[in-house]
Amino acid sequence: MKLVSTWKPAESAKIAPEFPNVQWVAVKEEEDVLREVADAEVVFGHIGRDAFLAARQLRWIQNGGAGVEKLMAIPELVESDVVITNTSGAHVDTIAESAFGMLVYLCRNFKRLLQAQSDHVYIAQSDYRGVGLAGMTMGIVGLGNIGRAIGLRARAFGMKVIAVNARNTDAPDWVDRCERLDGLPDLMAEADVVVVCAPLTPLSRGMIGPAEIGRLKKGAYLIAVSRGGIIDEPALISSLESGSLAGAGLDVQAIEPLPAESPLWDAPNLILTPHCSDISDRTDAATSTIMQDNLRRYVAGEPLRNIVDKQVGY
Amino acid sequence: MKLVSTWKPAESAKIAPEFPNVQWVAVKEEEDVLREVADAEVVFGHIGRDAFLAARQLRWIQNGGAGVEKLMAIPELVESDVVITNTSGAHVDTIAESAFGMLVYLCRNFKRLLQAQSDHVYIAQSDYRGVGLAGMTMGIVGLGNIGRAIGLRARAFGMKVIAVNARNTDAPDWVDRCERLDGLPDLMAEADVVVVCAPLTPLSRGMIGPAEIGRLKKGAYLIAVSRGGIIDEPALISSLESGSLAGAGLDVQAIEPLPAESPLWDAPNLILTPHCSDISDRTDAATSTIMQDNLRRYVAGEPLRNIVDKQVGY
Repeated sequence: MKLVSTWKPAESAKIAPEFPNVQWVAVKEEEDVLREVADAEVVFGHIGRDAFLAARQLRWIQNGGAGVEKLMAIPELVESDVVITNTSGAHVDTIAESAFGMLVYLCRNFKRLLQAQSDHVYIAQSDYRGVGLAGMTMGIVGLGNIGRAIGLRARAFGMKVIAVNARNTDAPDWVDRCERLDGLPDLMAEADVVVVCAPLTPLSRGMIGPAEIGRLKKGAYLIAVSRGGIIDEPALISSLESGSLAGAGLDVQAIEPLPAESPLWDAPNLILTPHCSDISDRTDAATSTIMQDNLRRYVAGEPLRNIVDKQVGY
Repeated sequence: MKLVSTWKPAESAKIAPEFPNVQWVAVKEEEDVLREVADAEVVFGHIGRDAFLAARQLRWIQNGGAGVEKLMAIPELVESDVVITNTSGAHVDTIAESAFGMLVYLCRNFKRLLQAQSDHVYIAQSDYRGVGLAGMTMGIVGLGNIGRAIGLRARAFGMKVIAVNARNTDAPDWVDRCERLDGLPDLMAEADVVVVCAPLTPLSRGMIGPAEIGRLKKGAYLIAVSRGGIIDEPALISSLESGSLAGAGLDVQAIEPLPAESPLWDAPNLILTPHCSDISDRTDAATSTIMQDNLRRYVAGEPLRNIVDKQVGY
């Protein structure tokens, strides 16, 4: 059985030796992918449409991350019998940590504190204000693995958690309320901080538009750590500039890499990071574990984990 | 009954009307304190030695914060029958939030991300590394209200928690191990992040010295949010400069305000904040609640909450 891996070579090389009966071909350049994929049964990592069309024996794609919207953009793949699995769950701890880091950065006014340190200025206590997280209500948009990881931490921080979710509304008992997407307007109005954890799908694209942002409380916070394109960025910037929103954190943007001319760079009270909230020493290890386990299952003919529902896109 | 309040006037003014039978005198200037305190039975806030010696009818001091080391520096007060209560517990949520903010700031390399945002540079994912908190061991020095609040959050972040504590070793079941201070060397060697939450007492002063800092793992983090003077600052700076420590966060310093010539300002991978981790909208409200409740108890002749043990200093 031939497996073509376009995934991180160093990590890929750790898994391959465990599977001596798998013909493991690690490739990087697009022309090599096109050639090697022709008789491959399995792909680890991402492939584009041309490679997919060239892969006549393909049965399974193990994506290298959680989000599969780029694979979903290949109609022939969506219509085919090829199974897609993702690494959902591998990144959740690191993403949740990053989300909390952004939230505390904003609430504790770290920007001012860091500037003062840089200037060697010891701000008087009477001249500093901070906002407490305990007692806040967090609204989670998309209560999947990431949303749950963030919500669990929010609970430990003394926050109330409410959520909306597209696919189902099963929620742990520490979630105060979980509704379908029609509950979004109420969530936006009630939450002190809204965290966007939803996958990018036709349903979620542009879902947090001007009307939704307009429903946020004065002094609320908005954080996005899943995919860009869900939040309307011009509306977010307006809300930051007017002072209606107290702050925002965007690890993901509608266009990545973010263009030099984007007004997001200088929006007030916005912390902007380059889609890196998932990157840590732990994430690579957890991703490898999922991939290894799935390949073991595939070889043994057992059901795979993390199968993507191609009808909904995650 | 006369009460002299040197505590925040705006907060003090919220409590006074509830106690019409208390002669409530809010004072600010030292000379006014000296005069008014002479026939006062209760003081809310801090007073110095001269004022204490002038207060011949004093029976109770309700301190405005948790730390009472400045009151403990008045020998005549320590030896007297005057009861001291503090506001231990009021600040813990905000302090725990700040501590986590500093830790995530360091682990996720926010410094580099914020600089890149400021420069309008979108760092490539392959050029960014972060450290995951989940799976780390947190060592808590001083498992009082603050230590517990931080530890509870650490557990939700998937961390193992160990602790040392001077007064007793009763610990919640989510603490893996809590020992007396003779367990400090082992804690320093085992923890990936050490958080100093102890009060400043003769026992804790200088407790985290060069030997203790030298026991920390390469790549460990050190955070202090209770009082300066517990960590040896020159040893900390050396350890940061050598790259042995991955990072540190100090909300408290041995000398406050921090002098302009302090080498702490520019120590690498150090986030330095001006003893403000306890300041938030929530903290004032929680402090008032404790003070109000204690005054009600005092007037009714009931036992006070948060009585400081003058033998140990907290």
